[in-house]
Amino acid sequence: MIILGLDPGTAITGYGLIEAVAGSYRLLNYGCIRTEPGHSDAARLLKLHEDLCFLLDAARPEQVAVEKLFFNRNTTTAVPVGQARGVLLLTCAQRDLPIGEYTPLEVKQALTGYGRADKKQIQYMVAKLLRMKEIPKPDDAADALAIAITHAHYYRNAHLWKEGQ
Amino acid sequence: MIILGLDPGTAITGYGLIEAVAGSYRLLNYGCIRTEPGHSDAARLLKLHEDLCFLLDAARPEQVAVEKLFFNRNTTTAVPVGQARGVLLLTCAQRDLPIGEYTPLEVKQALTGYGRADKKQIQYMVAKLLRMKEIPKPDDAADALAIAITHAHYYRNAHLWKEGQ
Repeated sequence: MIILGLDPGTAITGYGLIEAVAGSYRLLNYGCIRTEPGHSDAARLLKLHEDLCFLLDAARPEQVAVEKLFFNRNTTTAVPVGQARGVLLLTCAQRDLPIGEYTPLEVKQALTGYGRADKKQIQYMVAKLLRMKEIPKPDDAADALAIAITHAHYYRNAHLWKEGQ
Repeated sequence: MIILGLDPGTAITGYGLIEAVAGSYRLLNYGCIRTEPGHSDAARLLKLHEDLCFLLDAARPEQVAVEKLFFNRNTTTAVPVGQARGVLLLTCAQRDLPIGEYTPLEVKQALTGYGRADKKQIQYMVAKLLRMKEIPKPDDAADALAIAITHAHYYRNAHLWKEGQ
């Protein structure tokens, strides 16, 4: 199963593409969609949508995974991140792609088995599980790979659980 | 000039359509796009996009106006509102529609000349300027009409200023 993980942002959206087969993961591709700082929100969201369409056409993922967002703190980034996330969700919904959403806790538990793992531990596990020689860069791409692995983990467990009934 | 004001939300997005001619405003239409509470974010954003496309095809506005969003407080609604706003901006950008963005302060000043006007004063002025017998309902639609009037106000002033050069 080919899974696309996405880490949304108006300036930079990370993506990570993996193939999950029988409990192991194979890295296919990863990177970022970037938009121009000087452009309007509308122009940047259009670029994000168009680049994601291009990526979906090229990579043909069967499932998509994004992080669930909680902003309970004083923050000014919730709206731009929400806007980018809205565009990603719409673009995937237009292609009828199933979308898995996971909390940061679920990502930590899927990758390390430990709910309080820090960013470095998550990135180390991403590189290890995908047999990469170095930590993937930038952080947005590493986060996108982490969410893709999380989806594969829970989907596989849910799938096995169903088979066991 | 036909102006569409939008007040974004995942559950309910208000819209207000006015025609601005020579400093006066004519009400064309107003209402809400609603999405199903039980559906996924992706499904709700797809419905929002499709209903907005239908509205744009039917009403053919020449300009669009939305509020600038600031969430500096502890809030859990910033992400869903941001998601809906992202979908609205994308949908308008796909049709190459000019989009005006205004702060709550600018809305208050355009409608009442007073930066500390409350919600009721704004709604009263919306009804008065559009010669409506009652305050438009729900609040989301009244807010959308207010932002449309704000855009007409600033656009007209900017236009007059240019003519005066």
